[in-house]
Amino acid sequence: MVLFKLDKNSKIPLFKQLINEIKEKIEIGALKVGDKLPPTRQLAAHLDVNRTTIYKAYQELWALGYIESKSGSYSYVRQKRECNSEVLLSENESICWKNKINPQAEKLFQQFGKIGHPFSGKTEKFDGIDFSLLHPDSRYFPAERFRKALNEVLTANPSDLFDYGESRGYLPLRRIISNRLTLHGINTNVDEIIITNGAQNAIDLLIKLLVKPGDRVFVESPSYGMMFPTLTFYGCKIVPIPMTNEGADLNILQSELQKEAPAFYYTMPNFHNPTGITANQEYREKLIALFEKFQVPIVEDAFEEEMKYFGKVPLPIKSMDKNKIVIYVGSFSKILFPGIRVGWIAASKECIDRLAVLKRCSDMSGNQPIQAALAEFCKEGFYEVHIKKIHKVYRKRMMLAISNLQKLNRFENVEWIEPNGGFTIWIKLKNIPFSYDELNEIFLANKIRLALGRDFFLTNSTERYFRLSVANLNEKEIYLGFNRLYNAIKDIYN
Amino acid sequence: MVLFKLDKNSKIPLFKQLINEIKEKIEIGALKVGDKLPPTRQLAAHLDVNRTTIYKAYQELWALGYIESKSGSYSYVRQKRECNSEVLLSENESICWKNKINPQAEKLFQQFGKIGHPFSGKTEKFDGIDFSLLHPDSRYFPAERFRKALNEVLTANPSDLFDYGESRGYLPLRRIISNRLTLHGINTNVDEIIITNGAQNAIDLLIKLLVKPGDRVFVESPSYGMMFPTLTFYGCKIVPIPMTNEGADLNILQSELQKEAPAFYYTMPNFHNPTGITANQEYREKLIALFEKFQVPIVEDAFEEEMKYFGKVPLPIKSMDKNKIVIYVGSFSKILFPGIRVGWIAASKECIDRLAVLKRCSDMSGNQPIQAALAEFCKEGFYEVHIKKIHKVYRKRMMLAISNLQKLNRFENVEWIEPNGGFTIWIKLKNIPFSYDELNEIFLANKIRLALGRDFFLTNSTERYFRLSVANLNEKEIYLGFNRLYNAIKDIYN
Repeated sequence: MVLFKLDKNSKIPLFKQLINEIKEKIEIGALKVGDKLPPTRQLAAHLDVNRTTIYKAYQELWALGYIESKSGSYSYVRQKRECNSEVLLSENESICWKNKINPQAEKLFQQFGKIGHPFSGKTEKFDGIDFSLLHPDSRYFPAERFRKALNEVLTANPSDLFDYGESRGYLPLRRIISNRLTLHGINTNVDEIIITNGAQNAIDLLIKLLVKPGDRVFVESPSYGMMFPTLTFYGCKIVPIPMTNEGADLNILQSELQKEAPAFYYTMPNFHNPTGITANQEYREKLIALFEKFQVPIVEDAFEEEMKYFGKVPLPIKSMDKNKIVIYVGSFSKILFPGIRVGWIAASKECIDRLAVLKRCSDMSGNQPIQAALAEFCKEGFYEVHIKKIHKVYRKRMMLAISNLQKLNRFENVEWIEPNGGFTIWIKLKNIPFSYDELNEIFLANKIRLALGRDFFLTNSTERYFRLSVANLNEKEIYLGFNRLYNAIKDIYN
Repeated sequence: MVLFKLDKNSKIPLFKQLINEIKEKIEIGALKVGDKLPPTRQLAAHLDVNRTTIYKAYQELWALGYIESKSGSYSYVRQKRECNSEVLLSENESICWKNKINPQAEKLFQQFGKIGHPFSGKTEKFDGIDFSLLHPDSRYFPAERFRKALNEVLTANPSDLFDYGESRGYLPLRRIISNRLTLHGINTNVDEIIITNGAQNAIDLLIKLLVKPGDRVFVESPSYGMMFPTLTFYGCKIVPIPMTNEGADLNILQSELQKEAPAFYYTMPNFHNPTGITANQEYREKLIALFEKFQVPIVEDAFEEEMKYFGKVPLPIKSMDKNKIVIYVGSFSKILFPGIRVGWIAASKECIDRLAVLKRCSDMSGNQPIQAALAEFCKEGFYEVHIKKIHKVYRKRMMLAISNLQKLNRFENVEWIEPNGGFTIWIKLKNIPFSYDELNEIFLANKIRLALGRDFFLTNSTERYFRLSVANLNEKEIYLGFNRLYNAIKDIYN
């Protein structure tokens, strides 16, 4: 019988010592493939240890692939497959992921996945004034109230909330959303709402619902930058519709509709990202009439619906949608917190029923405790209070930004659009010989960062645009930032 | 000047009364398109109310599309587009969603979306004994400890957690997962892990990563039922590989690999769903060698990796994966709570980098506060404590179920596979003239519900299988349930 030595004074548990002993004996060849190990009872007596110690050691050796054992019978040393065995593929034989990866996914990665790309989700730290962010200001997050709401619901019925939820989303939250939408003139019932992981998830699900590879999709140009990779992945043809100061050009929309109907039209009628343009009522009426005529769905992205702190904004297109051709996308991200990932789609029941299956296939359902806490938060009236508070904050910020914009009047090559609310201002620099990268260098040298216009267009243009956001900057920072912007533009035109 | 009457004693706010008055006047024609409204100052004086009351009313009327106003100028009645205007499409003109909806999405809905379908996410309430559920038992949820962990993290750094997170997932949680995987013999670093919304989201992202329409995907037969709609949506050809008592048939795998390599092979080596089969070490070694030879990725779904309460289970295939061809999917759903939707993928960095972009396009990132709370929960040692507790619970339940199975020995047409852990037992009823629906009726009449075998196969078979799960039943319920099962089977064979 092979001898094993165990040290009862060691800190290493006995069964682990035994494992190491046996492994070592196998590795140095003292135990060979096919060798019988001592029966547990016999070895336990021999080593003067509890028989479960031997059991435990044998069990782990078996899991590690060193020994073979059949219940009630002996354990044998077996041929363990070594990790560094001969099957290790050599460098040029090793699996070539590029050949395995879906070319659409590879394309996304090559175009948008590199670290530092604005869509990579990992932007470098910046210690200047950052006008590029569209995140709401974390200094105003009602975190403490949300924590209270979470505690409320998790104390009341934790089991329900930790179990699988409905793919359509947590019913009480759908009810609250449905009620809230009536304030915007939208009448929907809970069966016409599905909750998503933020607006981005809504867009992804809607593409799955409506788009076949090769389909056309109309998108305002410029538009929300993440639309391009998301649509591209699903193999559709993006048709950019140029923005005018009122909204996307209706004549071009009409002629494109006549050419070939798209799977849908994606539009942001309020505080359009990135231009900040808000379409007026007359424009909206013409738009919906046009799409009703061609029977093409409109996806209305209302990510900043509630940011109407200047008051004067028409109701959503969805509010006029008697024929249910409008699919409305909403989100809590820009008002409360992006990190909880809660948005929704309001659309005809036929769409929602199908979206529920797509949602189930993509991740079963949203996060239950978070949805419940959000419902509680709204029920307590915290949402109303918060909206009022941030309206004051952002009204002040935007007024300050607009008044500071006037300073740029002395540059005849600088143009901008004054927004009716929201977070962003769109600036155009005309007659510029510099590339975006060169301009960015000048901004960074002046310790400001702006979102580069190119990220909002499908194709390059000779014009140079920048999106300036006040979402994350307080008044002092805005004031200082505009001084720097003024200096940067002076540098550019000198 | 048109006269308006306001009732200062009414509970309806004055500006709302004014809105109603003006709307009514427009609707009855007392105010016509193009009519000027009184200036705010003048009307305020006339009605003896604050001027902001008039402002508010005009603003809302404008948002509602009743009036037109330019800043500093008069307000006019405009032609409002009526919801029930002439553009309302008639019944047979109205948008036909079936023509708009992606046929793959429609197919999913027709096959899997109907209410009552086991994949619809809405199962009917059942007051008998339910052997069909694979959810962990909510009576053992460590809800209170998780709530404490949530409070801990939300008190410490709420702003960080409510802001957008990394697409790859919350770094400290990735670290914890990476550490935990070493217990299962898997060495990965944090760059080789991405956090997903549960295992289903991991599968969806992996299909996006690896599959082009028309690609073959190998799947054990039977398999996790949700694989079929999910794979079908992306247009791939599912190749079912029949299960033997050891795992999917290696000879068939080999011949299918020789025929045409698939995009990947999806396998559950531990406590396979639905059969409960656990592949032994020798099988796993042959399997990985085979796929290394053909350089085809293996997706190892380890959704119940930690449910090894009987001890004797080999390490994951991923633990032998020197060549990084194995993509490992894990989940917290079956151990802690499904409702928090947290799972992960461990794979080569090349895959993870690309998955991060796909994740970003599909929903930006996972839920931040929940990921942080989970990390805290694990750090506090609660996860370890909980695993030990539920191991005891499920060991007892499964032992009771296995001993009760012996009663079925008197039926020569009943076969089953004894599992090594996990939640499920797979039962085969031979020589049966009844359909699944008829058998289900018999079970329901005996006040038990089982998962029907047909939901785990791509195509119908003449055999009749049932999956019996002890996940949600305590010992008393299991005992009672087996008595009823015995009676039901007696009914079937009489």
